[in-house]
Amino acid sequence: MIPRYSRSEMTDIWSPETKFRIWFEIEAHACDALAKLGVIPESAAKTIWEKGGAAKFDIDRIDEIERETKHDVIAFLTHLAEFIGPDSRFVHQGMTSSDVLDTCFNVQLTRASDLLLADIDKLLEAIKRRAMEHKDTVCIGRSHGIHAEPVTFGLKMAEAYAEFDRCKKRLIAAREEIATCAISGAVGTFANIDPSVEEHVAEAMGLSAEPVSTQVIPRDRHAMFFATLGVVASSVERVATEIRHLQRTEVLEAEEFFSKGQKGSSAMPHKRNPILTENLTGLARIVRSSVTPALENVALWHERDISHSSVERMIGPDATVTLDFALVRLTNVIDKLLVYPERMVGNMDRLGGLVHSQRILLALTQAGSSREDAYRLVQRNAMKVWESYHHAGAAEVDFLTELLNDADVRQYLSEDEIKNRFDLGYHTKNVDVIFKRVFG
Amino acid sequence: MIPRYSRSEMTDIWSPETKFRIWFEIEAHACDALAKLGVIPESAAKTIWEKGGAAKFDIDRIDEIERETKHDVIAFLTHLAEFIGPDSRFVHQGMTSSDVLDTCFNVQLTRASDLLLADIDKLLEAIKRRAMEHKDTVCIGRSHGIHAEPVTFGLKMAEAYAEFDRCKKRLIAAREEIATCAISGAVGTFANIDPSVEEHVAEAMGLSAEPVSTQVIPRDRHAMFFATLGVVASSVERVATEIRHLQRTEVLEAEEFFSKGQKGSSAMPHKRNPILTENLTGLARIVRSSVTPALENVALWHERDISHSSVERMIGPDATVTLDFALVRLTNVIDKLLVYPERMVGNMDRLGGLVHSQRILLALTQAGSSREDAYRLVQRNAMKVWESYHHAGAAEVDFLTELLNDADVRQYLSEDEIKNRFDLGYHTKNVDVIFKRVFG
Amino acid sequence: MIPRYSRSEMTDIWSPETKFRIWFEIEAHACDALAKLGVIPESAAKTIWEKGGAAKFDIDRIDEIERETKHDVIAFLTHLAEFIGPDSRFVHQGMTSSDVLDTCFNVQLTRASDLLLADIDKLLEAIKRRAMEHKDTVCIGRSHGIHAEPVTFGLKMAEAYAEFDRCKKRLIAAREEIATCAISGAVGTFANIDPSVEEHVAEAMGLSAEPVSTQVIPRDRHAMFFATLGVVASSVERVATEIRHLQRTEVLEAEEFFSKGQKGSSAMPHKRNPILTENLTGLARIVRSSVTPALENVALWHERDISHSSVERMIGPDATVTLDFALVRLTNVIDKLLVYPERMVGNMDRLGGLVHSQRILLALTQAGSSREDAYRLVQRNAMKVWESYHHAGAAEVDFLTELLNDADVRQYLSEDEIKNRFDLGYHTKNVDVIFKRVFG
Amino acid sequence: MIPRYSRSEMTDIWSPETKFRIWFEIEAHACDALAKLGVIPESAAKTIWEKGGAAKFDIDRIDEIERETKHDVIAFLTHLAEFIGPDSRFVHQGMTSSDVLDTCFNVQLTRASDLLLADIDKLLEAIKRRAMEHKDTVCIGRSHGIHAEPVTFGLKMAEAYAEFDRCKKRLIAAREEIATCAISGAVGTFANIDPSVEEHVAEAMGLSAEPVSTQVIPRDRHAMFFATLGVVASSVERVATEIRHLQRTEVLEAEEFFSKGQKGSSAMPHKRNPILTENLTGLARIVRSSVTPALENVALWHERDISHSSVERMIGPDATVTLDFALVRLTNVIDKLLVYPERMVGNMDRLGGLVHSQRILLALTQAGSSREDAYRLVQRNAMKVWESYHHAGAAEVDFLTELLNDADVRQYLSEDEIKNRFDLGYHTKNVDVIFKRVFG
Repeated sequence: MIPRYSRSEMTDIWSPETKFRIWFEIEAHACDALAKLGVIPESAAKTIWEKGGAAKFDIDRIDEIERETKHDVIAFLTHLAEFIGPDSRFVHQGMTSSDVLDTCFNVQLTRASDLLLADIDKLLEAIKRRAMEHKDTVCIGRSHGIHAEPVTFGLKMAEAYAEFDRCKKRLIAAREEIATCAISGAVGTFANIDPSVEEHVAEAMGLSAEPVSTQVIPRDRHAMFFATLGVVASSVERVATEIRHLQRTEVLEAEEFFSKGQKGSSAMPHKRNPILTENLTGLARIVRSSVTPALENVALWHERDISHSSVERMIGPDATVTLDFALVRLTNVIDKLLVYPERMVGNMDRLGGLVHSQRILLALTQAGSSREDAYRLVQRNAMKVWESYHHAGAAEVDFLTELLNDADVRQYLSEDEIKNRFDLGYHTKNVDVIFKRVFG
Repeated sequence: MIPRYSRSEMTDIWSPETKFRIWFEIEAHACDALAKLGVIPESAAKTIWEKGGAAKFDIDRIDEIERETKHDVIAFLTHLAEFIGPDSRFVHQGMTSSDVLDTCFNVQLTRASDLLLADIDKLLEAIKRRAMEHKDTVCIGRSHGIHAEPVTFGLKMAEAYAEFDRCKKRLIAAREEIATCAISGAVGTFANIDPSVEEHVAEAMGLSAEPVSTQVIPRDRHAMFFATLGVVASSVERVATEIRHLQRTEVLEAEEFFSKGQKGSSAMPHKRNPILTENLTGLARIVRSSVTPALENVALWHERDISHSSVERMIGPDATVTLDFALVRLTNVIDKLLVYPERMVGNMDRLGGLVHSQRILLALTQAGSSREDAYRLVQRNAMKVWESYHHAGAAEVDFLTELLNDADVRQYLSEDEIKNRFDLGYHTKNVDVIFKRVFG
Repeated sequence: MIPRYSRSEMTDIWSPETKFRIWFEIEAHACDALAKLGVIPESAAKTIWEKGGAAKFDIDRIDEIERETKHDVIAFLTHLAEFIGPDSRFVHQGMTSSDVLDTCFNVQLTRASDLLLADIDKLLEAIKRRAMEHKDTVCIGRSHGIHAEPVTFGLKMAEAYAEFDRCKKRLIAAREEIATCAISGAVGTFANIDPSVEEHVAEAMGLSAEPVSTQVIPRDRHAMFFATLGVVASSVERVATEIRHLQRTEVLEAEEFFSKGQKGSSAMPHKRNPILTENLTGLARIVRSSVTPALENVALWHERDISHSSVERMIGPDATVTLDFALVRLTNVIDKLLVYPERMVGNMDRLGGLVHSQRILLALTQAGSSREDAYRLVQRNAMKVWESYHHAGAAEVDFLTELLNDADVRQYLSEDEIKNRFDLGYHTKNVDVIFKRVFG
Repeated sequence: MIPRYSRSEMTDIWSPETKFRIWFEIEAHACDALAKLGVIPESAAKTIWEKGGAAKFDIDRIDEIERETKHDVIAFLTHLAEFIGPDSRFVHQGMTSSDVLDTCFNVQLTRASDLLLADIDKLLEAIKRRAMEHKDTVCIGRSHGIHAEPVTFGLKMAEAYAEFDRCKKRLIAAREEIATCAISGAVGTFANIDPSVEEHVAEAMGLSAEPVSTQVIPRDRHAMFFATLGVVASSVERVATEIRHLQRTEVLEAEEFFSKGQKGSSAMPHKRNPILTENLTGLARIVRSSVTPALENVALWHERDISHSSVERMIGPDATVTLDFALVRLTNVIDKLLVYPERMVGNMDRLGGLVHSQRILLALTQAGSSREDAYRLVQRNAMKVWESYHHAGAAEVDFLTELLNDADVRQYLSEDEIKNRFDLGYHTKNVDVIFKRVFG
């Protein structure tokens, strides 16, 4: 996480101010529940809200105390006492630091999830708009980077839509994984605190109670969370890679929006580089890099150790801030993407009609040719066109003409039967079916 | 995946025999649908099932053809034609190799998921049994490897149960991710095959139709699948690590079952090593190692490339076979685990009652001491006991006695008030509440 | 590691036969040293070599014994005794299983390294040959996938050469990391075996003595080894990715060799897919996946645990076999790569001379224009050409003509001064310098 | 990288101030070389040093320009021009942004390496001191967490020393990998800049010239660099894990230094937790997490893309700052580690002499017993002691006594022959040999 690739909406969630505010809320809600149980005076709980709710925590002061005590929660509680006065001794009764830290971390992760979900909604909206706009914009489909058969640009968008719609479902599940609260005291036995306190705080903070904790909330939950971010990042990379390919000079079927003041290169002024999507490719690697440490964090020793803490202090902000930035950037790229339907047709046509080869193959077998013969007939004509393309970079020999002139082919197929197979509409006839599946 | 760490139940799913049988079924079901549409003769579909259904595919022969054609599906279809005869030309009409390969891979992964889910069910059963058996077996809870406060061994099991119950839910979701079928032809447009064929095959194979495919089923699905296996493996590692800790000489609160003929060491006959759980720790690393390549597989080029294929040929079997083996091994370890309640009490007692320090701390604050004073009073007595423990490896000074003799402590607390805090039942009073949350 | 991506040269290193032969040699060499020290009779050492050296170990029998004893080295020693008779009691004196296992693993890894180094030598040879062949074959250099300025295909090869030459050095260092031998007995103190035995065995097996071992050879060595394989694999991926790009339909500057019987697609006979390099991309992911578990293997507990063992049983063969296969495949691809110089020129020309823009920019500043003005003048002419290219897929407007007709440009530069900048030789004039740096 | 785990010595290397100063130096040195070649006026080169050398670059201003141009090097050059005036048009002649960026990144990485190497030197010094101090401090060696045979604490330190000495060699090699400079212009052909400029700048900046670059310095170098950091981090984790084990309550053979003001737990005042080494375990995970993205960065497209850039902007500082902090923290932990020789002996003795079992096993075979019989005799006596230990947590039965009373044992060994085997000196007799190997 660096400012260059951060949005304040997400970094705010990870600020010390936000963290201490959440800590306070957890402690104060716990006091409410303790007061209701008669463990602490009702007046104390009220005082804590009144004085702490209005308090502006002094982060430098907390840091100063922590430098002495080497314990962040004690430092915070000490500072809190400076606001609240004598009633502060009722704060944190029967609780352990992890109750505060782990619940706070999960609050931050759920807020981060909400932001990421909002990002995905906007991304889906942008993708959908471009999908509808280009539902019938024919372009060549490529397997192995080699021209295959026609698709439409809208289908590419539909695929991205379906993929991010799955990502949305995964993120919702990931959010649920970490939306839990633990207020179970040392080693999680509720020896010193009633389970009802946990339930109260959970509800107040929009979480569910962790069924069994061991001072810490189990880290398989967080492993699942970060693993999910890694999957979402990989989908970002896939779409970014597609755009990078489409923008390369020889293809040029789409381009990232190029603003007026922008300079592509310090040396070559004609260059328009897909730097946003290249950047997204790199950001995806960064988000993914949090997956392995999160998996390694699961096996804490006995009821807990603190090896996970330094990891989470870094990957918590890093992964969420970077993914948030990436999703917003991708949305922007998709939203403003320059699409060139004319170049799409141009690229397809440069192969002299070879994209129709499979239709001819099928027509031949349906007309009685053996599969092997049909393959051979198609291949020998296709190769002529291909070699012409190969030589000149644009076919000067036409597949249709070659087929019409091939006597062996004509034994099976008439002129019309051949010509009818050179029809782009044939390839796009089920686009509506697919769109209905994807967009409903 | 090596025989040493494999079970045939899982390796069978990945055998060439199983694979070609699934390929055949996909092709034959597709023929049924094509016949229904009138694209191929009903009689052909019937012949295909009759002759292919009974066929015993010759794997060496298929390999031989593949060596020439360098294409596995063509090799299979050629071999299939040797059984079926002329009607074989109706097989694979309008389909592409990926339709067969990807749908087959997903069938294998769903079957692997079913096996893993059955493994987890047995694991949960074993854990639950041991949890109930040791619900009230008190042992010390440890944070940072340091004695903290009492828990029960049943609680440790309850935590493992809750964790693998979450893993079960995750695996069910992961199974759903990859339980899809694509029969959409080259570049996924259904140009040469009707979408209804896909729907028919999907239903026949127990899958759902992939809403939009691009010759391949999108790999974000598989990324999510393998990421989930990585999380499950990390939970295996966590429980294995716990047992390794409990078995170490100085702790010895539990041991892996030690069979008669087994020799622990070629040199030191008294050794009983936790080799199964150490092995599980390693196996977890192996399963996890499939996560990153699966994430890297997502960004295929354009409508597809084939970079993912070699990866999946390896991690498909490797990750599922190894995790299956690990889950069964862990079940066996848990099932037969030797648990030593007497040693648990012994270890706890060696600290001379220090585990009750937090209760005294709370008692002091409740009796009117400031938090800081209480902390100081507890700490000075605790330190004496600790130093005695430190010196002899078992405390010769008793925390209770020290407290009773501390005049400052006695200003706040009477003899009975102190003694009442040295009660293990205090720590286990909410075990039933937690068990109810976990086991219902 | 699967047969599809394996060569027997490497898999042989990992066969049980090879492993038991190495075990025998380690034990027998140790006996020689022990006899020299007078610890065991000279005659025993002689008998062991005589009877064991000729023995054909029965792997099924060893497996059978291991199933009972659950200990592989004891199983082997028991089987060995069946050949050697009473003198077998002198075998393994003062040694521990790890002495045999770890030293054997390192012997296998050094042999694997030797094979990988031989692979790299052949790869370097192939690259060098193609580099020399195409030293002056001009093609466009691309940054961000966008045409930049001319390079030569030979330069691309030179870069690959320099990269794999670095990989060779890294592999030599990695080999040295793991070329050590430990015969230090339980917990590595040489309590029961003299250090001179280790030195003798080390020399006999072509290794150096491990300065300090703890029953196991420290795993940071192996971590470094596998990390290095991961780097080499990433270089394989880089070159494979370059070829995939060059082969894509719109570029087609090079192609993997396409054999006669090979079919590119079951449906589209004109397709020639870069399947070998796509495959290499996937194999690179697999080799890399061994890096993280190898790093996780370093932190063994105390003097050793056995968590690393299952990991190494898998990644040892997997990573070396797969990388060996990949290097040989890449060598083959490079060796037979079809290179199309005509298409390289064709692709470059389609941009109407834009590749010379930077030269004009420099000429303008040298002729007295400010950097900003020069940039603007170049850009406005370049944009016209670019837009023409954009529209038609091949520029119909010529950069040279545009510049000659631009009065503002002509204020700084004469016709000849402009024309002289459109010279490909300008870009290749330092190719010999670079070749000398790389190839000496 | 977060302030909590950062030292300013390392973060300074990554500050914008340092970066722009390095950029300036690269540009100014290049001007010197260009002036020597007569490409630009000598006076210009002089002016650039005079005005730029004294300049205090305004980072906010550069950021402002970058927001408009979206290009960091152009932004810097524009700002530089504000200091230098008209001669600024001679800056960056024939160069490309990557010449500056990549060379700067490598300067930063070499400086970071130098700091890490200094860290390791200090760490080695601390380890060596503790090794010498505890050369003969006997403690039990443990395999699988189970008592094996005696070692010394000095040997543990010697092993750590040897390991970090290897890490030092690796870091030196890693530093060499990235200590290169590229000033080769667009796509690396030196078309617009003479190779002698690169050589001049390389020497001036303490680097070597990159033999062949392609606008960027090849990223296999950086992959190797970060992979090496990952290995070093894993060694940090290993030593940290050892200390965590030694500090756990039941073992307590060593402890992290515990300062006066430090509070171990907000709830349990007697707790002294190994939080520094737990923290190091987590930091190791973070450093390691940079390895995979660095490997993924290798396969840039054609002559370069910019996907690596965002990754390196993060992992460059993150990995070096975190590893630097970790090494310094580990040095501090080792330096002040509280070591408890008395507890080491105490723990060993609790097993009633079982650690001598292997010596008895050897004595029996040397006295004529078969290996199998000897094993059986040792095991049956050992098991009695073990069961006693098992029951009470400290053996009440003594292995020596049991052996002396076993008639079958006494058939082979006299009282003295048995007693002589219970000698700790036997186990430590080769410590000096090992120390000589490690420390010379």
